[in-house]
Amino acid sequence: MGILGGGQLGRMLALAGYPLGLSFRFLDPSPEACAGQVGELCVGEFADLEALSRFAQGLDLVTYEFENVPVEAAKRLAQSLPVFPPLKALEVAQDRLQEKSFMRALGIPTPPFHPVDGEGDLKDALKAVGLPALLKTRRGGYDGKGQALVRTEGEALEALKALGEKGLLLEGFVPFDREVSLLAVRGRDGALAFYPLVENHHRGGILRLSLAPAPGLAEALQRKAEAYAREALRALDYAGVLALEFFQVGEELLFNEMAPRVHNSGHWTLEGAETSQFENHLRAILGLPLGSTAPRGFSAMANLIGLKPDWAEVLALEGAHLHWYGKGVRPGRKVGHITLRRDTWEELQRDLPRLLALAGSPGIIGGKGGEGWTGPSA
Amino acid sequence: MGILGGGQLGRMLALAGYPLGLSFRFLDPSPEACAGQVGELCVGEFADLEALSRFAQGLDLVTYEFENVPVEAAKRLAQSLPVFPPLKALEVAQDRLQEKSFMRALGIPTPPFHPVDGEGDLKDALKAVGLPALLKTRRGGYDGKGQALVRTEGEALEALKALGEKGLLLEGFVPFDREVSLLAVRGRDGALAFYPLVENHHRGGILRLSLAPAPGLAEALQRKAEAYAREALRALDYAGVLALEFFQVGEELLFNEMAPRVHNSGHWTLEGAETSQFENHLRAILGLPLGSTAPRGFSAMANLIGLKPDWAEVLALEGAHLHWYGKGVRPGRKVGHITLRRDTWEELQRDLPRLLALAGSPGIIGGKGGEGWTGPSA
Ligand SMILES: Nc1ncnc2c1ncn2[C@@H]1O[C@H](COP(=O)(O)OP(=O)(O)OP(=O)(O)O)[C@@H](O)[C@H]1O
Ligand SMILES: Nc1ncnc2c1ncn2[C@@H]1O[C@H](COP(=O)(O)OP(=O)(O)OP(=O)(O)O)[C@@H](O)[C@H]1O
Repeated sequence: MGILGGGQLGRMLALAGYPLGLSFRFLDPSPEACAGQVGELCVGEFADLEALSRFAQGLDLVTYEFENVPVEAAKRLAQSLPVFPPLKALEVAQDRLQEKSFMRALGIPTPPFHPVDGEGDLKDALKAVGLPALLKTRRGGYDGKGQALVRTEGEALEALKALGEKGLLLEGFVPFDREVSLLAVRGRDGALAFYPLVENHHRGGILRLSLAPAPGLAEALQRKAEAYAREALRALDYAGVLALEFFQVGEELLFNEMAPRVHNSGHWTLEGAETSQFENHLRAILGLPLGSTAPRGFSAMANLIGLKPDWAEVLALEGAHLHWYGKGVRPGRKVGHITLRRDTWEELQRDLPRLLALAGSPGIIGGKGGEGWTGPSA
Repeated sequence: MGILGGGQLGRMLALAGYPLGLSFRFLDPSPEACAGQVGELCVGEFADLEALSRFAQGLDLVTYEFENVPVEAAKRLAQSLPVFPPLKALEVAQDRLQEKSFMRALGIPTPPFHPVDGEGDLKDALKAVGLPALLKTRRGGYDGKGQALVRTEGEALEALKALGEKGLLLEGFVPFDREVSLLAVRGRDGALAFYPLVENHHRGGILRLSLAPAPGLAEALQRKAEAYAREALRALDYAGVLALEFFQVGEELLFNEMAPRVHNSGHWTLEGAETSQFENHLRAILGLPLGSTAPRGFSAMANLIGLKPDWAEVLALEGAHLHWYGKGVRPGRKVGHITLRRDTWEELQRDLPRLLALAGSPGIIGGKGGEGWTGPSA
């Protein structure tokens, strides 16, 4: 199996795939890509045709772990090999405008949004969307990069310049109760499976903590998320894991963004669900039956961001599972995660402060999204 | 980390170790050793000094996945590197006579046994042990190889010749109720952890099925097994996972054999326990805190012996987890296993026939050990 991208998602896909008897080759521009420690690494730019054909040699199937792979590269591979998830999903997910328009066309609610390609548009956008709002680049942003919160017209103009004037999107700021995500799986035969909704906490635009299942999850909310996902999966003729991020406002879900791949907010499934998102992604794209997505107890996943904790301290915490990606530690870089799994929510809640202290994110919980902007400035 | 042996146990150790940020090198005589698919393989005989020093280059720690590694090779490595579990354990485990004498000296019950090194001894042995009995080679047997059931003096003489006259052991045949095993873990600091006893079913001398926890497991039996293990671990100044196999007769446990390594009857821990035996072995020999050994629900592990099942059929069974070792399929060869994990014993029991059918072992359950010898003839 070939994987475009050789980061931690690729690495964990491979570790989940070996027990199924699969073998893996990664394409990544960096010779240090951490998946290379657990599988064959092909070093090259995604746009380099020679690298692509070296990578493709002898593969049966291609997937990706990184949604900013150039669509052209995926298209080229698709001429000779099956590529899953389908290119359409890659295309849509790479553009915040397309992604939100696509969902809205399916009847899935989103925050108000408006494209911005210069000062003229900005006026219309501000009228349509209102303030406060977020000005975001349509393409290439991740982990909160390429976004600015704007409270006044003046700030909006400043942000417009800082973000390059063109290829932008103005989005209404949503005073959400919380952020949740749905990991959905669709097999090549159309079979569907959904993990329970996860509650996500960000800081500095980066995911810090996921709680799974989302505390106090109402069945109706889960059904609503699944209904939205079902629409999207069908419209994309999808195969694999699709992650959908939502803002929860009361009992409503507003679509924020999607990732056509395994997702950071699904890492808890390695220990906290019957079948991990990684294995289910592989099962789905191989045309195998999907595995049970039933949770096992209650899980909290905390990212390790630019920080290497003391192994012994982490492993001394009962139910803690360490995942180190084998990357160099640099500020702001996701270098690992810890999943804490317990049989009851009470036990999990009790040990949560310890987990967050180990992960260097104390105090991440408490305070609603609407109470303060925690994203980076542009 | 260096691992002596590059079979499936080494492979699964590596897969459990990558999330801890470890990397692995295997030493194995075969260039096809299946662990080589997931880590660096050093091809060479264990007894080859040149191969040993190539293997040792740059390692921090050595362990083994195969207890018939020549003790000399392990000793040589131990001159320059920490080797766990300790050599004493390797030495004892390689000799059925030493192993049983060692346990008996610790006050742990065993079947009656007597060494046999020729026709003269055989007479004494038959007197001491009685009939029926098993004549076994002291060294090198595994999966029931090198054993013969003898019911008469005549059969004993025949077996003596077939097995080479020397280096043998006569052992009383135990009409056991069932076979159970204990996976015990001891850290470098002396910390202890025990998995629940497992019920094991063999056919043709090869483990076919493990049920974990052992159905109807009484707390007193678990405590008895743990007390025996505690003695053995301390006497060996052990670090790592130690597997102890017992015959259960009523509420008594008779020690059969030990393996100073991760063990086939512990594979269920990958999905069925909070921490797998593989991760706990690594934690133990690295001097890290041990992980919880608490079971999660009920598990049945069926070996795939010389048989490649249909992936789709296996994965269609809810709660089934496939582990394929990436080995060529040959009769009698362990090429993978399936663990079926369910939340209740009733669900597990209901799906057990399906599991056994998939694994090519229908009817393995039912019939007590005393009712018929299922081992191979010598
Ligand atoms: N319209 C909005 N209203 C309120 N908060 C928002 C809005 N859009 C984004 N945010 C906040 O910023 C975070 C990052 O935004 P978004 O998911 O669009 O960016 P990203 O950089 O693509 O992040 P990711 O790494 O999750 O893909 C969100 O998780 C949320 O906390
Ligand atoms: N004394 C005995 N009484 C009854 N059955 C026995 C006895 N010894 C061995 N057996 C049967 O033979 C099987 C294999 O024996 P043993 O464990 O000694 O051999 P082995 O070849 O080393 O197996 P393994 O692969 O488990 O190491 C046992 O699991 C048991 O079913």
